Amino acid sequence: MKIAIYRKEHFNAAHRLHNPEWPADKNEEIFGKCNNPNYHGHNYDLVVKLAGPIDPETGYVYDMKRLKNVIKENVTSKFDHKNLNLDVNEFKKLNPTAENIAVVIWNILREKIEIKYDLTVRLYETERNFVEFSGD
Amino acid sequence: MKIAIYRKEHFNAAHRLHNPEWPADKNEEIFGKCNNPNYHGHNYDLVVKLAGPIDPETGYVYDMKRLKNVIKENVTSKFDHKNLNLDVNEFKKLNPTAENIAVVIWNILREKIEIKYDLTVRLYETERNFVEFSGD
Amino acid sequence: MKIAIYRKEHFNAAHRLHNPEWPADKNEEIFGKCNNPNYHGHNYDLVVKLAGPIDPETGYVYDMKRLKNVIKENVTSKFDHKNLNLDVNEFKKLNPTAENIAVVIWNILREKIEIKYDLTVRLYETERNFVEFSGD
Amino acid sequence: MKIAIYRKEHFNAAHRLHNPEWPADKNEEIFGKCNNPNYHGHNYDLVVKLAGPIDPETGYVYDMKRLKNVIKENVTSKFDHKNLNLDVNEFKKLNPTAENIAVVIWNILREKIEIKYDLTVRLYETERNFVEFSGD
Amino acid sequence: MKIAIYRKEHFNAAHRLHNPEWPADKNEEIFGKCNNPNYHGHNYDLVVKLAGPIDPETGYVYDMKRLKNVIKENVTSKFDHKNLNLDVNEFKKLNPTAENIAVVIWNILREKIEIKYDLTVRLYETERNFVEFSGD
Amino acid sequence: MKIAIYRKEHFNAAHRLHNPEWPADKNEEIFGKCNNPNYHGHNYDLVVKLAGPIDPETGYVYDMKRLKNVIKENVTSKFDHKNLNLDVNEFKKLNPTAENIAVVIWNILREKIEIKYDLTVRLYETERNFVEFSGD
Repeated sequence: MKIAIYRKEHFNAAHRLHNPEWPADKNEEIFGKCNNPNYHGHNYDLVVKLAGPIDPETGYVYDMKRLKNVIKENVTSKFDHKNLNLDVNEFKKLNPTAENIAVVIWNILREKIEIKYDLTVRLYETERNFVEFSGD
Repeated sequence: MKIAIYRKEHFNAAHRLHNPEWPADKNEEIFGKCNNPNYHGHNYDLVVKLAGPIDPETGYVYDMKRLKNVIKENVTSKFDHKNLNLDVNEFKKLNPTAENIAVVIWNILREKIEIKYDLTVRLYETERNFVEFSGD
Repeated sequence: MKIAIYRKEHFNAAHRLHNPEWPADKNEEIFGKCNNPNYHGHNYDLVVKLAGPIDPETGYVYDMKRLKNVIKENVTSKFDHKNLNLDVNEFKKLNPTAENIAVVIWNILREKIEIKYDLTVRLYETERNFVEFSGD
Repeated sequence: MKIAIYRKEHFNAAHRLHNPEWPADKNEEIFGKCNNPNYHGHNYDLVVKLAGPIDPETGYVYDMKRLKNVIKENVTSKFDHKNLNLDVNEFKKLNPTAENIAVVIWNILREKIEIKYDLTVRLYETERNFVEFSGD
Repeated sequence: MKIAIYRKEHFNAAHRLHNPEWPADKNEEIFGKCNNPNYHGHNYDLVVKLAGPIDPETGYVYDMKRLKNVIKENVTSKFDHKNLNLDVNEFKKLNPTAENIAVVIWNILREKIEIKYDLTVRLYETERNFVEFSGD
Repeated sequence: MKIAIYRKEHFNAAHRLHNPEWPADKNEEIFGKCNNPNYHGHNYDLVVKLAGPIDPETGYVYDMKRLKNVIKENVTSKFDHKNLNLDVNEFKKLNPTAENIAVVIWNILREKIEIKYDLTVRLYETERNFVEFSGD
């Protein structure tokens, strides 16, 4: 028997969408105003989902305080109030689209969360644009 | 590897729930105040989900601006500020319940979105009543 | 000493913006898609604010259950799942803009709420368009 | 062909997390401030999902008014404005974590909803901590 | 020139509405299910508003981090995961209605926030029931 | 008789809080992580409020479509997907705190909105930190 638990966190960051192998006009055409060389930014909302059995002694799947701390130590503290392109190693050579940010976060957390728990990451770039990745 | 992207749009419309093959008292009994002959209305929120691989050149599954335009041209522009029963062809003979509206939107979008992308439509009639259809 | 209390209710209704003294093209120009002759609709959110002293025996300014019932009996039950233009007497000759709906609701409630309480009505037509009236 | 429908309800309750087989210091260590012997409380949001075929006569998967009543009669009326530990039989010997509350609600509803409908229960303890159970 | 700043915090607490000078049946009649002797609870949202001039050196009215800390040290840390009736001194003899909680919080903060700033406290007991106090 | 109307818009931007007349350590002490030299960013929500009489011919205080366009042409188009410090003239020498951004927006709109309408600007930097300015 499996039950899913969800924890919502957030971080505020600057970013720019850009492919360095393309000329300026193609970057402008594909990424539009997201290609602004001086960056823009977002309040990102992050929802982390773990699925597993309920521990009969605690009634928990996974301690929410522990999950909150795992996310803060490994993700939020590195991304919050940062420029994703310039300040975060994972995006030195990777375009920080919502899709790529979600995959990077999933990979970071997958190493910290025991494999017996299924892991899904949902990332809201805005209230109207969001993505979800489960590692499949 | 698949990742899901979501785009949220909305439209405001009038509708009435009614089965023309039933007598008035049965329509009243089954549909209650939703059967009001003069119509009532809603602010519908529509969330469209596509799942597919990330394009390594763009970092996108599907360009959100393109998805937004596909939804606006094929759904929102036809449904927004309309009377679903009277103004929208698909509901001339189909009861515009949230379930049927979601299936109609899914069918419209399925023709416009390449088949390699999984497609799911979620429709909020109110904050408390909503439906989701994936074509299965 | 005054403190304000707020109660949020909602109703779903159809309406059409139209001035019968204008020709069709002027109605179209001024009201745009809101002039659709077959109506459209909204999920209206209504927030009623009363301000007055705290009753020392109850700790209440005004019993929320009583306020909820006053709103339901006098406003919601008459507006919900209705066509404002056709089904609600107050709009037989009054254009049901958000502004006019708020003033109508304020006038209805002002007669039911003792004058010692200040009264304000806020009406959300959508999340992005809303109005507020205090009777001043 | 299956489509999912969702109904959101809520209840306000007090609870305390505690394992009577553990000493006080272990309860304090594991459950932290949630172990407060005088209880604390939450506004719980409950989203019930049913999946099944659309009835061609009504256009409904399941009448939302009926679903709302099933939830109110069997869940909300028993949990709302209650102390889960003291007032609700199911938690006399079961720790009322969000996980366990969701499973209890799922079991209650599974008996009331015909088996042909898939059933999922999502429970928000706060906006940032929530769980979901599908009976698997 | 004055500008208002707002900071939103929250706390989760149990409470019971009760007037010890009334017989049980009157408490039941006036407070209904809120009078449950075993308590119930809420996720309270608290919005604190300060109004004052902008400091030209910082561009701030009041440092948000400092405001957040003032609220946490003086309000949230004393109310969160507590039983308001049993664990919080201010409600030993005062009925913890939303109105009274807001006045208590306003009085606590008024002593900690320099008098040159106007102070308003808004407290959401639920999304639909809330109160606001400005000390007037 | 006056009634208030509100229009909500949004923009996504990067910014950095910094006082060039202070040494690095004082900037770090006062602005903390908001002083990151590579910028961070936000999804800003902007609510513009106008108060005035209802035009009896239209039932409007001010045409919402016109208000939406005034905001887009004069504010959103200049701030959205920009770096406030580098790309927006008003912040070349002014620290882009929420307070200062709100005053700048109010000044821009005050020139475009006839003086007979009272004008208030509310700006959400995050859901939990926001400011409001009325020109007083």
